[in-house]
Amino acid sequence: MTVLILTSEEDVTADMVVVHLNASGVPVVRLDPADLTGGVSLSGEYVHGSFRGHLSAGGRLVSIGGLRSVWVRRPGTPAGRAAQPSAWLTEEASQALYGMLRGSDARWMNHPDAARRARHKPWQLRLAQRRGLPVPATLITTFPRAAREFAERYPDLVVKPVSGAHPQDPPRAVPTSRVAPDADFSAVAFGPTLLQRRIAKRADIRLTAVGDRLLAARKAASPDADADEVDVRFAAPGLPWQPVDVPPRTAEAVRAYLRDAELAYGAFDFVEDADGTWWFLECNQSGQFGFVEVETGQPIARTIAEWLALPATGEEGTAHLNGRNSAVS
Amino acid sequence: MTVLILTSEEDVTADMVVVHLNASGVPVVRLDPADLTGGVSLSGEYVHGSFRGHLSAGGRLVSIGGLRSVWVRRPGTPAGRAAQPSAWLTEEASQALYGMLRGSDARWMNHPDAARRARHKPWQLRLAQRRGLPVPATLITTFPRAAREFAERYPDLVVKPVSGAHPQDPPRAVPTSRVAPDADFSAVAFGPTLLQRRIAKRADIRLTAVGDRLLAARKAASPDADADEVDVRFAAPGLPWQPVDVPPRTAEAVRAYLRDAELAYGAFDFVEDADGTWWFLECNQSGQFGFVEVETGQPIARTIAEWLALPATGEEGTAHLNGRNSAVS
Repeated sequence: MTVLILTSEEDVTADMVVVHLNASGVPVVRLDPADLTGGVSLSGEYVHGSFRGHLSAGGRLVSIGGLRSVWVRRPGTPAGRAAQPSAWLTEEASQALYGMLRGSDARWMNHPDAARRARHKPWQLRLAQRRGLPVPATLITTFPRAAREFAERYPDLVVKPVSGAHPQDPPRAVPTSRVAPDADFSAVAFGPTLLQRRIAKRADIRLTAVGDRLLAARKAASPDADADEVDVRFAAPGLPWQPVDVPPRTAEAVRAYLRDAELAYGAFDFVEDADGTWWFLECNQSGQFGFVEVETGQPIARTIAEWLALPATGEEGTAHLNGRNSAVS
Repeated sequence: MTVLILTSEEDVTADMVVVHLNASGVPVVRLDPADLTGGVSLSGEYVHGSFRGHLSAGGRLVSIGGLRSVWVRRPGTPAGRAAQPSAWLTEEASQALYGMLRGSDARWMNHPDAARRARHKPWQLRLAQRRGLPVPATLITTFPRAAREFAERYPDLVVKPVSGAHPQDPPRAVPTSRVAPDADFSAVAFGPTLLQRRIAKRADIRLTAVGDRLLAARKAASPDADADEVDVRFAAPGLPWQPVDVPPRTAEAVRAYLRDAELAYGAFDFVEDADGTWWFLECNQSGQFGFVEVETGQPIARTIAEWLALPATGEEGTAHLNGRNSAVS
């Protein structure tokens, strides 16, 4: 049974995981959908009530029925590097490749549907609330009056994008910023705005979840930190990331979140307040983990390799995402 | 409890359904996401572990918690008609609108994730096979040799796109065509090609499924039909569509297909062969039904209105699509 990794050629993080898979003798096929229909070929036959499918990449042929897991890392646009690329060819190649893989019994990290759903921040906030994770008071609105009333109730606010990264090429992260006390909210009418109560933080927490394994790291706020630097991605380098235990109730809530979200991998961002409470900010289903592994020495790549190496579900279930991620529950 | 319809302004099919909902006194809000942030506004607040959200359109305000169902008919691109449209604004508006709606307990026709998955033809074929619907022998390949071998086994073939409609503006349907016996398959290497055994058909069947209600119509092949005209969408107008009973085993398989696909609505295309067998061609989760209703008098719009008018699930379940479509099972 083979592990299929969908990613670009230059992906050092995937390299780290492949090293572990190779060391344990698990067959791996790695390909970039952008190389359809050049270096990557596919074929699937539906005859007499059954399906037989194959992928070929770098001269290796793998049976779709023989996949134990699929890691959707950083795949390129299907057929994006074809001799004559076009929107039509991309659509055909995407439907053919993912349409066949979706019919397989392999486990996914992460399933494309679960990944897509998990990117919706309003949905994340609701799910976190329902699973008992503390969520800072948040408003998403196009009503200037609603924004003004919210700012009266919660005078210390940050603003951030609803959708994450700006869709330019390459995508640009939009930093979270503090809202000035006398802010004019009339521009809210021109685009949905996410306002959130600022948590006076003692530390940032990154919790990396791989199946049911939780690896958390903590980065204490620098004692002389500028309170306006709310976004850890853009803050001056301070204290290092260090491994930290996950409080049992948080662990339980995080596992319930992942189960409902049908995710096998998630990078959770929390902030820790003065009382030690971890406040949920977001869960990035494709969040980077290399920097945490390097600073903390936590074996994230090895844990991912172990998850990918588990046997396929072998279920005849087809549609339910659940079936894919049984190792999560 | 309100029915929310997401569609464009000029949608006669939606009008038909709204007439029935109005007649039965069910509140309806209809809006086009393209009108964010002009005629359509939204606001959602996450405070103290709960969510309160609202949509406003045409001067009407509706609570997201008060939605019984969402009909995703033909929604425009979010914020597509904003004063200053941009990819960024569309992404923000899409995440805000669908992110909030995804967290609601409303039933969906169809849920965006289920709809997206259901568009994959290779996945459709596999699911139809698994649920016991006869599927004509099919090959999807980029290997010319595989295509040649398939054509030797099944000399009477049709070719059709993997993905459905050509993504130009407006989208163009690519007709299904017969493959000439001496076809050269070398171009298969440049793009995935779908080859399917041609069924010598006695009739086309359109089965419209609304929840667990199945409404089938049959259009007998014209006795002087040209065998090369395999695509009913492009054939000369022949005999009319007429209501037909669904064979019990087909009904059972179709209901299992919809349950696995987590679809509340699906338009199935079959062809009936000389033995009376219905061969599965595809299930279009957004297929038109107006022409069938007009020719057969089958009450499809009313059946959709009745499904939309059912109470919300009321479950606290968040992630599982299942919960949305409980009326299907």
